[in-house]
Amino acid sequence: MKPIVEIARQIGISEENLEQYGKFKAKLADELWDELKERPDGKLILVTAMNPNPAGAGKTLTTIGLSQALNLIGKKTVAALREPSLGPCMGIKGGATGSGKAQILPADEINLHFTGDLHAITSAHNLLAAMIDNHIHHGNTLRINPKKIVWKRAMDMNDRALRQIVVGLGDGNGITREDGFMITTASEIMAILCLSENREDLRERLNQIIIGYDTDDQPVRAQDIQAVDAMCVMLKDAIKPNLVQTIEGTPVLIHGGPFANIAHGCSSVVATKTALKLADYVVTEAGFGADLGAEKFFDIKCRQAGLTPSAAVVVISVRALKFNGGVKVADLETENLPAVRRGFENLKRHIENIRKFGVPAVVAVNHFITDTQAEVETVFELCQELGVEAALSRVWEKGGEGGVDLAEKVARAAEQPSQFRFLYDEQQSAKEKVETIVRELYRGSGVTFSPAALKTLQKVEAMGLSHLPVCMAKTPYSFTDRPEILGAPTDFTISVSEIRLSAGAGFLVVLTGSLMTMPGLPKKPAAEALRVEQDGRITGLS
Amino acid sequence: MKPIVEIARQIGISEENLEQYGKFKAKLADELWDELKERPDGKLILVTAMNPNPAGAGKTLTTIGLSQALNLIGKKTVAALREPSLGPCMGIKGGATGSGKAQILPADEINLHFTGDLHAITSAHNLLAAMIDNHIHHGNTLRINPKKIVWKRAMDMNDRALRQIVVGLGDGNGITREDGFMITTASEIMAILCLSENREDLRERLNQIIIGYDTDDQPVRAQDIQAVDAMCVMLKDAIKPNLVQTIEGTPVLIHGGPFANIAHGCSSVVATKTALKLADYVVTEAGFGADLGAEKFFDIKCRQAGLTPSAAVVVISVRALKFNGGVKVADLETENLPAVRRGFENLKRHIENIRKFGVPAVVAVNHFITDTQAEVETVFELCQELGVEAALSRVWEKGGEGGVDLAEKVARAAEQPSQFRFLYDEQQSAKEKVETIVRELYRGSGVTFSPAALKTLQKVEAMGLSHLPVCMAKTPYSFTDRPEILGAPTDFTISVSEIRLSAGAGFLVVLTGSLMTMPGLPKKPAAEALRVEQDGRITGLS
Repeated sequence: MKPIVEIARQIGISEENLEQYGKFKAKLADELWDELKERPDGKLILVTAMNPNPAGAGKTLTTIGLSQALNLIGKKTVAALREPSLGPCMGIKGGATGSGKAQILPADEINLHFTGDLHAITSAHNLLAAMIDNHIHHGNTLRINPKKIVWKRAMDMNDRALRQIVVGLGDGNGITREDGFMITTASEIMAILCLSENREDLRERLNQIIIGYDTDDQPVRAQDIQAVDAMCVMLKDAIKPNLVQTIEGTPVLIHGGPFANIAHGCSSVVATKTALKLADYVVTEAGFGADLGAEKFFDIKCRQAGLTPSAAVVVISVRALKFNGGVKVADLETENLPAVRRGFENLKRHIENIRKFGVPAVVAVNHFITDTQAEVETVFELCQELGVEAALSRVWEKGGEGGVDLAEKVARAAEQPSQFRFLYDEQQSAKEKVETIVRELYRGSGVTFSPAALKTLQKVEAMGLSHLPVCMAKTPYSFTDRPEILGAPTDFTISVSEIRLSAGAGFLVVLTGSLMTMPGLPKKPAAEALRVEQDGRITGLS
Repeated sequence: MKPIVEIARQIGISEENLEQYGKFKAKLADELWDELKERPDGKLILVTAMNPNPAGAGKTLTTIGLSQALNLIGKKTVAALREPSLGPCMGIKGGATGSGKAQILPADEINLHFTGDLHAITSAHNLLAAMIDNHIHHGNTLRINPKKIVWKRAMDMNDRALRQIVVGLGDGNGITREDGFMITTASEIMAILCLSENREDLRERLNQIIIGYDTDDQPVRAQDIQAVDAMCVMLKDAIKPNLVQTIEGTPVLIHGGPFANIAHGCSSVVATKTALKLADYVVTEAGFGADLGAEKFFDIKCRQAGLTPSAAVVVISVRALKFNGGVKVADLETENLPAVRRGFENLKRHIENIRKFGVPAVVAVNHFITDTQAEVETVFELCQELGVEAALSRVWEKGGEGGVDLAEKVARAAEQPSQFRFLYDEQQSAKEKVETIVRELYRGSGVTFSPAALKTLQKVEAMGLSHLPVCMAKTPYSFTDRPEILGAPTDFTISVSEIRLSAGAGFLVVLTGSLMTMPGLPKKPAAEALRVEQDGRITGLS
């Protein structure tokens, strides 16, 4: 690792604009933006993927490797990635910092407390929760209906016992009511932090958070609780992007990591916009597959922030294609060309979808050692038939060098003039927006809304908020709302069970099926393997 | 503020041994201790106080001012203080970083997230809690009795609704049981972090934490849950002391801040020992008044860490004496010599008590603008009668210069050869230890133990842990266990309601009366006044 001041210097950031956290992590000072804001923007590259599955595609790995490769071919590049959450690192082995020769450093610290952003969000979240119960305890002048409080508590931990709880038992301990904890990444504050342009925007969005409803069923907002300024105080540093480096010294802004189902699953707007001023190419990623991640990146993040993406990389692996073509995990290492062809249908639909946004797509075939020559050739043939550029990516094994072909194809694609457009118009009704997504991207035949969802939509309309984009909370494994249906299904309907209003983040969450916002730990948690070694290194994390 | 690298340089710490958190905060690297450990120790000065009361004595203020004053008179001095908790800053106005010309900077950041130590403790605490419920959920091979889990959850927030809760409701969400949250400073992990000599000691102490009892009523420890290594990972940086500065550039190690009732209320052993290697004088403070704070500092912290204090400063104010002499808060600004004399009885007993530990005492009279000349003179007369050195301290108004007389008297006292001794022998039974404290320090006539407390003492004996020192959890306002009894009462008994075993921290918590480990917010929380100003400064905190 190089000292972070040196990485910063590479992209023209002086030491005064750096707030160091140890020698290898730093936050960018508020003053930096004033220096940068008049500069032209670089090109924005989105890395997305086919539908995720247990075979693994390697989206984060490819994002890191591609940014290294772009630098290798002389394109000044910064990666803008999501910040991992501590809780899941304790559950199932594996952080979110890449691996092999395409990883971000210092991986252990990034996966743990990092610069404290998630802790700050947890604190701000729970301050609001405490102030709600405190308001009711001290007389409830806002007439909050204790049965209609929608603001839960948050913790950055996988803790199933906290999913559904009763609080306020015992004398003098406030009102007794049902409540629950979500994991911090699912907090609306995380989504807000990631969509805010600056401190003022952050404050205004926090003000708009709906914490519950009063006895007249009117929304009560965070601003009514007088918690927002204190929340801004707690988030004072969390809104500053974090600078780290890849194993090859490529600068990376890691900042924010909202859930990709009930939120939009992209790193922060502040980091993306800063990166665009610092580099010619900014490589960023979105959660899950392109049906969810890319759609939300385009329709929510780019729409709200006024961003124009220049190209999209769709990461696949031969293994993941075969899984999508019906092969079981145990059989993935056996050559199976028909399965590759069948699985390709899934990729094909994602490519078609991305073209609907007017964004040129490039396929990154993340190479695994078990891929056969014939399988790889089949993928390239199919890509050629589809008229989409494809490149083999060996960044795990070779770092940036393993991604040079990909980088060259991505750079070429990004040089085309942008024809970026949204999938739906914000003036469409929420129902129409959902129907457009289902028809155009998922290729379902229709949508059924539950009575509860329809009621919420009426409420949203009455509140004058139907211009908000929609945020689909659907299984990432399938174009349908049933995880077991792989490939490129047609003739299905999507069932919307519930609509939630994230008024601060600025979107309507459309729930299909049940949703878990607090994970549990497995029988053998990854935490059991973590160690601090004699020399202070952490092992067992990735 | 000077850059923290410069403050470090003043006391011989090179930039390589500094992990910066922004420009004005830093953690000391692990490697520093290896460089320092062979050096001789400086002199350790404890700052304590008479029984606290609403009139205010000014213990933290005096600690900071004294450390500035010692530097002014040419004694190389480092202060070692407790780390504030975020939760209480949201409740009742006021941080814990001094004020006026005797304060620590950057006050806002120290009072908020600082370097993340409290967040790390919260995470480690809640990981253990999650792993306990997870263990039971996945089959409970340890046969933990869900009704006898003593390890609660923790949050750094004032949130009364979380004091008493039911967790694990709903299908698939683990076992349903009663639980509760404590504020992070009350976590045994905070006490452990503050008493650990190093990483190995930390690990061993975490291993010993008793999380509950099994179906045979045998203790189940954190090591049985296999959570300890992951907890050490989470505490990897939290165990490193934090360096900041006073408003006059005196170096301050702020590190750890355990509760002063159910724990020992002192900053970390690691910080104290490091400071002793870096300076000729180390000024540190203990929680509450000398009956609790100084006793625990001597009998728990100094005993466990092998520290020898050279002098104790007892902070008083004329106002606080008058309050103890029966004056109401509204009347504190009226001259009242008889009340000063009556209140002095409280101070007198504390001085006598400190002498029992063989430590020379100096009285610091923290000057308020409303003190009259006659009142101040009366205090000095009474101190002279008692044969104790006293000095007027005007550090709020004048900084170090206002504490020069105090500093000179403290330095002189500390030059006497130490006759430090513990109040009780560790081989005494726990009952005898408590009785010794009550008889010798509080001057009560006896102790009554509840049947539950006696039962726990038997258990402790059977576990071979009766050598542990005792940690009194008593009201700080009185020598008795009733807060309204001021002055220097005699002829009372102390009632022990419960004994808790902090096997990791290494003490028995002796509870007298009821105990609150999770504060609530007041009707008008201090949080409502917090702001981030345009220029990024935080206002409303202190």
